[in-house]
Amino acid sequence: MAGALRHGTMRAGNLAVVLGELDRRGPLTRAALADGTGLTKTTVSKLVGDLIDAGMAVESGAVRDGERGRPGTAVRLSGHRVAALGLEINVDYLAACVVDLTREIRVIRTQPVDNRSVPPAEVIARLRTLATTVLAEAAALGLSVAGAVVALPGPVDPITGTVHRAPNLGWRDVAVTDTLALPLPVVVDNEANLAALGELWFGSGPSLGDFLHVSGEIGIGAGLVVGGGLFRGAHGFAGELGHVVVTPDGPPCRCGGSGCLERYAGQDALLAEGETLPGLVARLRSGDPEALESCTRAGTALGIALTTAANLLDPDTIVLGGIYAPLFPWISTSVTRTLHSRLSQMHPKVPALVISAAGTNAAPLGAAGSVIQRVIADPTPLLPSPPAPHQEAIG
Amino acid sequence: MAGALRHGTMRAGNLAVVLGELDRRGPLTRAALADGTGLTKTTVSKLVGDLIDAGMAVESGAVRDGERGRPGTAVRLSGHRVAALGLEINVDYLAACVVDLTREIRVIRTQPVDNRSVPPAEVIARLRTLATTVLAEAAALGLSVAGAVVALPGPVDPITGTVHRAPNLGWRDVAVTDTLALPLPVVVDNEANLAALGELWFGSGPSLGDFLHVSGEIGIGAGLVVGGGLFRGAHGFAGELGHVVVTPDGPPCRCGGSGCLERYAGQDALLAEGETLPGLVARLRSGDPEALESCTRAGTALGIALTTAANLLDPDTIVLGGIYAPLFPWISTSVTRTLHSRLSQMHPKVPALVISAAGTNAAPLGAAGSVIQRVIADPTPLLPSPPAPHQEAIG
Repeated sequence: MAGALRHGTMRAGNLAVVLGELDRRGPLTRAALADGTGLTKTTVSKLVGDLIDAGMAVESGAVRDGERGRPGTAVRLSGHRVAALGLEINVDYLAACVVDLTREIRVIRTQPVDNRSVPPAEVIARLRTLATTVLAEAAALGLSVAGAVVALPGPVDPITGTVHRAPNLGWRDVAVTDTLALPLPVVVDNEANLAALGELWFGSGPSLGDFLHVSGEIGIGAGLVVGGGLFRGAHGFAGELGHVVVTPDGPPCRCGGSGCLERYAGQDALLAEGETLPGLVARLRSGDPEALESCTRAGTALGIALTTAANLLDPDTIVLGGIYAPLFPWISTSVTRTLHSRLSQMHPKVPALVISAAGTNAAPLGAAGSVIQRVIADPTPLLPSPPAPHQEAIG
Repeated sequence: MAGALRHGTMRAGNLAVVLGELDRRGPLTRAALADGTGLTKTTVSKLVGDLIDAGMAVESGAVRDGERGRPGTAVRLSGHRVAALGLEINVDYLAACVVDLTREIRVIRTQPVDNRSVPPAEVIARLRTLATTVLAEAAALGLSVAGAVVALPGPVDPITGTVHRAPNLGWRDVAVTDTLALPLPVVVDNEANLAALGELWFGSGPSLGDFLHVSGEIGIGAGLVVGGGLFRGAHGFAGELGHVVVTPDGPPCRCGGSGCLERYAGQDALLAEGETLPGLVARLRSGDPEALESCTRAGTALGIALTTAANLLDPDTIVLGGIYAPLFPWISTSVTRTLHSRLSQMHPKVPALVISAAGTNAAPLGAAGSVIQRVIADPTPLLPSPPAPHQEAIG
């Protein structure tokens, strides 16, 4: 029994090693996979066979092996079967997307809706409808969805699938996973964390170095990516940029504090009464002085909060995402000016300020991408049961 | 040649494994060391012999092996030969300490002196004198000092041994290592980072979970310890708590910004004209209303900056060190009140606020401790050349 268990663990480890190698460096011949992983060619061939049978890998024609010049058939990740569902509940929209194993975006849907005016159960029911539609589209494409992650605008408990507090939605301790009741494994995570991962995997990625990704919405969150991974803090609540104090005696905030960044640079502070984001962008394009002044004010407050963040976190790059992406041409000047006036004397390196490449879909993409990461780290649940126990360990 | 090199690398790795095991779990028998490291008993015995010859380990009498009940002679780290020098240049004092391999403090000296009134070269010359005295004391104790780390109140470049900018000293790009010219390897690091490590190794340590250690001096720095290691940021400049913006249009700061925490809660803001820290503590003890009000004001500003830090970093614990340690009874109430009023609605866990156990010596202790960490990670430079190449690799 212990032997069989050990064999299963070994096979799972080896499958993850081969799949990870294909993800990072593919396409690769079986010989190159053996070289790269330290496994024998026989073991690699068996594991690759399993991955091909499961639709996770595919042969991609004859290539010349880079290192030794031998001809061989290359293997690469395949996106034709395994996929992941990314979902987002935010204050004024719902979003859903399907991403395949190669991280190609296969389906993406956004639904503008004011989620503040309805009870949580109804919002979650709407998300279920959207998810069901998107899952049907994925099935029509021949995709099998391995799991889902839901992005939520507040601190979450991933164990219970609950969002503790989403002040801009007016939610407190809402059991999202249980209420959603989708027919696949569902995990919850913070929207700003997932948006940062979305930028890492679907946006400008590694070129950013260590970066702070700012998600401007009605709330403002941030995710810090360090060495290709997310810095989450002791309880997973790091990156609450929206509640960085800009002016201690400023207007009260829904978080219970006052003078928080959200009150100066959140979507509600930027838009005029009843205005939409495209409406504001149109006013900015036409040179409307009030709109320009509103962006300068918000950008200065954002610059102050980001000065503080840079002093504490020291990132290479600050990425402006969410609503700050379309507003970048009008908001970035005052952010940059504030950062430089407050940091350049003290800091040899003031962080570069760039626009998000993943854009407004960063959070649902990061959500789907984190399911793909899990599949690549442990593909065994998606494979048939292991064959007879005579396989070999990593060398 | 490659074989010899490989052999040397292997021996170095194995020595580090055995020394690390003794550091974490010692005293241990050779059998227990073999079990814990996966090395054979023969290899362990040779490596332990080398470590005993180098004065880094010592036999500590017969013990019963915990796991299997066999009697054996236990081996433990020895502090009788290898030691490390920790140094600190701060605005109003110099400090030096010697710590042995077991992290016992063997010598510690602090010298109050106003380092703002003299040129950098003179400050560094004074530190050299202090270091030389302390090294002589260490030599008299039979200790051999492996290296030194200098704590500096500003961002440093460890490669060139330079402090970029220490605004409270008025220093800019001062080559500390070269000017100090001590007859042993010297590295520079940021004072607040080292103080956090000092708290980890010589203070309350692992019981704090992930913690933010605040070093209150004339400047205010912080070091974040995550999973037992320091979070340094992309360029090593993380944790500049003193320049977190408390009030954007507040008084100008030496960093080039304005309304920074240092202006509200640094030592100069707390002390009356010409007053010393013991003087302030005496006034506080006698219930002087002005002194109490000064602590409340500083504590509120510190609480605002720490609210921001908690929102961004999400630590388990916040440790108040430096001058905040003696002021803790009078300053902690307003810090705690501010943290709770601003965080408790949103955050399921408001960080605990505790007093530093390492106290005002945290930075030089962390400096010496980081030399010890390096010795334990790579003891070979302190050992005689390796014997003939027939040793065995890690199993």
